Amino acid sequence: MHREDQLVERTVRAIPSASSRSRFRGVSLGIGDDAAILALTGRTEWVLSCDSFLEDVHFLANSHPPKSVGYKSLTRAASDLVAMGAKPRFFLLTLALPASRASSWFDGFLRGMARASRSLDMRLIGGDTTKSQSISISITVLGEIARGQALTRSAAKPGDIIYVSGKLGRAQLGLDLVLNNLAHRRDFRKLLRPHLYPEIRVKLGEWLAQKRIASAMMDISDGLSTDLGRLCKASRVGARVESESLPCVTIPPSSVRALKKLKLDPLQMALHGGDDYELLFTVPPHDVKRLRRAPGFSELSAIGEITRDSKILLRSSDGSSTTLAARGWDSFREK
Amino acid sequence: MHREDQLVERTVRAIPSASSRSRFRGVSLGIGDDAAILALTGRTEWVLSCDSFLEDVHFLANSHPPKSVGYKSLTRAASDLVAMGAKPRFFLLTLALPASRASSWFDGFLRGMARASRSLDMRLIGGDTTKSQSISISITVLGEIARGQALTRSAAKPGDIIYVSGKLGRAQLGLDLVLNNLAHRRDFRKLLRPHLYPEIRVKLGEWLAQKRIASAMMDISDGLSTDLGRLCKASRVGARVESESLPCVTIPPSSVRALKKLKLDPLQMALHGGDDYELLFTVPPHDVKRLRRAPGFSELSAIGEITRDSKILLRSSDGSSTTLAARGWDSFREK
Repeated sequence: MHREDQLVERTVRAIPSASSRSRFRGVSLGIGDDAAILALTGRTEWVLSCDSFLEDVHFLANSHPPKSVGYKSLTRAASDLVAMGAKPRFFLLTLALPASRASSWFDGFLRGMARASRSLDMRLIGGDTTKSQSISISITVLGEIARGQALTRSAAKPGDIIYVSGKLGRAQLGLDLVLNNLAHRRDFRKLLRPHLYPEIRVKLGEWLAQKRIASAMMDISDGLSTDLGRLCKASRVGARVESESLPCVTIPPSSVRALKKLKLDPLQMALHGGDDYELLFTVPPHDVKRLRRAPGFSELSAIGEITRDSKILLRSSDGSSTTLAARGWDSFREK
Repeated sequence: MHREDQLVERTVRAIPSASSRSRFRGVSLGIGDDAAILALTGRTEWVLSCDSFLEDVHFLANSHPPKSVGYKSLTRAASDLVAMGAKPRFFLLTLALPASRASSWFDGFLRGMARASRSLDMRLIGGDTTKSQSISISITVLGEIARGQALTRSAAKPGDIIYVSGKLGRAQLGLDLVLNNLAHRRDFRKLLRPHLYPEIRVKLGEWLAQKRIASAMMDISDGLSTDLGRLCKASRVGARVESESLPCVTIPPSSVRALKKLKLDPLQMALHGGDDYELLFTVPPHDVKRLRRAPGFSELSAIGEITRDSKILLRSSDGSSTTLAARGWDSFREK
């Protein structure tokens, strides 16, 4: 049999898929033909995004477990759907990999992707597999949302309170552990997890969209300083962030000594670290009270306020302010 | 500004796009947010497919013009929609490229993609751009079709007549010219064209689906021997192909001498050459007459018949038959 076709068959066996034979709500035809066919009701809107995950750019094939690569490539793509308040539903996978990665590496990859797919309740509906020099993954995701409910990044208003979910910089810390060859240590396993297996805020995103509480929302994939800049630019506003309110990573006392040589700066990690996939959203002051019922409310932090200004300022505890430059992840930045 | 964001802005300026600001039928929100939003009517079905186009696998960045890379990457992706009879509508572009390709190469690429996008009447609705070591393009395409009208590859029946559109092997000939450093010659320009700027049979595909004339259909992207094998496998049938009926490339008399050293074999090129993106479809005998009204009917060839057997046979003019092995394009095949 055609080797590409074999890889497709292994994929369909491993990952929850809508195949040609299975019937799945909304899917007239799944994997196995030239294309998939969706029969949609028209009652909802469909949210689409694509995202690439590349060897030596986003991950290191010899340092990152294949299971993490599979899990994370889908999760980070789905994060863009969650960032609009949509429910993740389907995905298409374009995969290019060297022949040497087509056996056990590929199995690990599929296991990780299957885990993400099950945890997000998403089905694979199409794909394309090719041999290449290095591993390159591109995923297109489709989500569903009630008409008119999607939260964009362009409707933040001066006076809105800026919120983030979770702690920021956790993925950066995990990456630092990998890059410093500390990933194998059992005592760092928990610190490593957000980098290898990030969890995304599906319920929170859906809730904020359904309740129409947030004025604007996006996910933090490239770092707060870069992504807040994008939200402000799209909304034509500025922002003031209180450095003291930022939910920074706390290093467990038992690890402080072992991590000393990394010279970690939790504030800088929270401001510029990428890959957290937490939600960044703005709430008009009169809706702040309603937020208390949000799923995972205790993990939300109000970090500042949208301003009329076009600048983004970071205010320190002493009251002084500095401009917050976008120093998050940018693959094209000169080093 | 973020350099990735700059590339996105150049893309949106160059390629017909559904941007956040423009209103376009079916698009609630276009490029510029976390994801695009489609408001679909529910009266039609949506057809989705993804396709990758990689440097050193599918094209050579120093031999193939960037305009061709841009044009072809979208056209070949859209071919999967046409293969089901759908009307191409939208696409998402995932692009990874070295910084050295972000200037003039990228402009040429965008011009070619814009040309394909206009000619197919497709709009860009999303994308992702990253820096990488080599150029990697992944495109997800969406097409629209009346409910239940899509033509799959799995419904061919014994006795159905097998048709192909156009001539087969033309793209292979163009590739041979490129690989033999003959692409620069003005007298070969016409022979090169199907390889660099393939045209796909949008009207024929739509017509066959609308009129319910074809029983099964797919596009020939990896070569007839491989793709007919896939159609037969999906339909659980066999086929008999008449070698004399195959629409082979004809070398213009003026070029015969210059091409002699390439030792071209038009029959082998027609059987196994990839990248033609012609349509392969089957028609029940009682519907063959109706086919005369097909767009581009004069370019269709009946090449054989679907059989009850599971084999695919190639019958020569002397009446002898041999098994037709799948020897089309497979990036994973050992050389």
